[in-house]
Amino acid sequence: MNIPDVTQPRVVIVGGGFGGLELAKGLRGQAYQVVLIDRHNYHTFQPLLYQVATAGLEPDSIAYPLRKVFKRQSNIFFRMAEVEHIDIEANEIKTNIGALHYDHLVLATGSTTNFFGNAQLERYSMGMKTVPESLDLRSLMLQNFEAALLTNQLEERESLMNFVIAGGGPTGVELAGALAELKKHVLHNDYPDLDIRRMNIHLIEGAPRVLAAMSEESSAKALRFLEQLGVQVWLNTLVSDFDGQLITTNDSKVSFKTRSLIWAAGVKAVSLPGIPAASLVKGNRIQVDEFNRIPGLKNIYAIGDLAFMESEEWPQGHPMMAQPAIQQGKLLAKNLRAQLKHKKWKAFNYSDKGSMATVGRNLAVVDLPKLHFQGFFAWFVWMFIHLIALVGFRNKLIVLANWAWSYLNFDRGIRLIIRPFNPRAGMGKAADNRS
Amino acid sequence: MNIPDVTQPRVVIVGGGFGGLELAKGLRGQAYQVVLIDRHNYHTFQPLLYQVATAGLEPDSIAYPLRKVFKRQSNIFFRMAEVEHIDIEANEIKTNIGALHYDHLVLATGSTTNFFGNAQLERYSMGMKTVPESLDLRSLMLQNFEAALLTNQLEERESLMNFVIAGGGPTGVELAGALAELKKHVLHNDYPDLDIRRMNIHLIEGAPRVLAAMSEESSAKALRFLEQLGVQVWLNTLVSDFDGQLITTNDSKVSFKTRSLIWAAGVKAVSLPGIPAASLVKGNRIQVDEFNRIPGLKNIYAIGDLAFMESEEWPQGHPMMAQPAIQQGKLLAKNLRAQLKHKKWKAFNYSDKGSMATVGRNLAVVDLPKLHFQGFFAWFVWMFIHLIALVGFRNKLIVLANWAWSYLNFDRGIRLIIRPFNPRAGMGKAADNRS
Repeated sequence: MNIPDVTQPRVVIVGGGFGGLELAKGLRGQAYQVVLIDRHNYHTFQPLLYQVATAGLEPDSIAYPLRKVFKRQSNIFFRMAEVEHIDIEANEIKTNIGALHYDHLVLATGSTTNFFGNAQLERYSMGMKTVPESLDLRSLMLQNFEAALLTNQLEERESLMNFVIAGGGPTGVELAGALAELKKHVLHNDYPDLDIRRMNIHLIEGAPRVLAAMSEESSAKALRFLEQLGVQVWLNTLVSDFDGQLITTNDSKVSFKTRSLIWAAGVKAVSLPGIPAASLVKGNRIQVDEFNRIPGLKNIYAIGDLAFMESEEWPQGHPMMAQPAIQQGKLLAKNLRAQLKHKKWKAFNYSDKGSMATVGRNLAVVDLPKLHFQGFFAWFVWMFIHLIALVGFRNKLIVLANWAWSYLNFDRGIRLIIRPFNPRAGMGKAADNRS
Repeated sequence: MNIPDVTQPRVVIVGGGFGGLELAKGLRGQAYQVVLIDRHNYHTFQPLLYQVATAGLEPDSIAYPLRKVFKRQSNIFFRMAEVEHIDIEANEIKTNIGALHYDHLVLATGSTTNFFGNAQLERYSMGMKTVPESLDLRSLMLQNFEAALLTNQLEERESLMNFVIAGGGPTGVELAGALAELKKHVLHNDYPDLDIRRMNIHLIEGAPRVLAAMSEESSAKALRFLEQLGVQVWLNTLVSDFDGQLITTNDSKVSFKTRSLIWAAGVKAVSLPGIPAASLVKGNRIQVDEFNRIPGLKNIYAIGDLAFMESEEWPQGHPMMAQPAIQQGKLLAKNLRAQLKHKKWKAFNYSDKGSMATVGRNLAVVDLPKLHFQGFFAWFVWMFIHLIALVGFRNKLIVLANWAWSYLNFDRGIRLIIRPFNPRAGMGKAADNRS
């Protein structure tokens, strides 16, 4: 049995995403007692959630048990819990499983779907930030096709076969592409008594281009790839409302009848009660200094999507994606190790490794800092990088087997409705509560 | 698009298990319009559910989309639906998606957990007949360990770490063995701050031996394997009640404090409203003749677990397992094909291929009709047969990868609580409703 050393200072990490995981790994074997808490007992590899939603990957191959990461680490303790309140005066967090004292508190809870205060959108559209949400989306998509078979009303059938994605960032683009490939290669075999040509995939983006954070070149190429696959892209268009049946936009001439709106048009940092409002900036993010410390709070840090660190190069903070979280987690571990040796802390300096998105089979776009490329080679690089980044050898193996299978057979093998989704129970909200 | 040929006689198959699937396959390309209905959109490979429940396999690798089985089959139509009533006068079934006329109706809905009328047991114990039930069991097991960490009361902690399985048939034996291996190889790494030696696995069987349907030799060997792995086996013992905390048995000196009772002590055929009570025999099964016809009903057949076919060799009907279902499905397809050519029907003659069960790594028992063997070679045969029998090459590939991984690493990699299970909502019942 593993008895905690109570003389060691305690580092509490909230959140086992990319940042929290990297930080905890960096404190292995150090003279800290590390407590990692997360509301799930697993790490989610969010970049591949869209493949779970489109029946290409098992949920179990992109989730990794957090306890397994830290087996045989005598100074790291995991607890499945949710933070309810941070008591900055008492150096204590309140959770649903009790209170916990900290010497250092690292907040790494990431981001959640942002509906910008529109309750109707939150109720009727589907988010895709967690494994259960992706499974709900998979179920809903398949249920809609089963339902489409049963109706003789053309309008209703088309509405069931219409899929609308709000947000042309990487998530929206990758999901739209994957749905288009399902249509092209799989669904006409599954539903021979349905006219799959009537299935439509719409991607709605408020900016004048998709993948607005990438190079103009990649944006243009991604748009061409999407159109090539049959996705209908609506640029300069903003969803204004959705009542579960009809989507209206800022353009009175553009509306969509559909049963499925997938909301990938915004994220915001997860709220943590107890953090003073003065520390919060745009999108609920927490302002931090160059060491990821929250100014004015003692021994509290924020990393990853949650952290807003202003710099000359990044006046709007770092992009809310895996790389800044990983690099900040790594550096904070290094700084906490330096502290044990009474050495100086090092300031964060983001090394931009670029960004990428895949639209479909052989179709991806990659922006490296000094090189942009698109097409088959980009797609290959995308796959390679994602396989490398996946946590756990078992998961890499299973994902590779699935990708090889899907590539050779033009298939998405996991078209299962394991837990049927009930749209009447409300979408975004309900999925969150159940997760 | 695939337009049904309305001049063909319609065969309606209810249930996409082993029997229904085999029957539908045997009618491919024949002059019948085949409608297969199932409440799930997938076939479940039930023999491996216990590995899903114990984090060894993804649910998605033992479930197979029914539509995928029949792609490009122009005479086979799938509908996801549940039968509500059979109108034998009108040759019609009523389902939750509407009424359907049949020329031939084949009932293949299989069996469900039998709580023998004990509502308390049904409420508090866990069944393991469907994929969602197995996932609930996986979640509950992991949740109980997370909860055990949080209590300082020894009695409560032990109750959370006690697992009791009622029923020493193949399901109970395989599940008990898999739990024992989790304890032996995995859980002490996951929960270093918990004394895993206090975890107990109890297997309760009413008969004087486990695997009572197999040879004495295999029973004795299976018992020895179980004890070798640390499972506590209670023979000649019957569970009488369970209130969610305490299991009582027919022996007043034997009771168990636990939060998890897994009920593998009985199955019964699924009820189908509209079938006359006179057709039903013990365990809710439907009496059929040697052609799987239900005497007195016109063009209605039952196959598999549901069918009770008396014969000299099998006075109690055939065993409720995959082989009789597969063989009956195959023969009924042949007979329905013969009917098209106005040929004579062939009577069913069960070819007993034997039975097997696996207790753990290198430990299995196999009874072939003329040969019984146990140990490593039996375990190898068990794996080989199950891989062959799995539906779909993708699933075989993923299961093989998982097995190789687990074997080499003494691991069960999928220790995920994707959807937390709420025991207060009621167990067997709730899981059924949600499935």
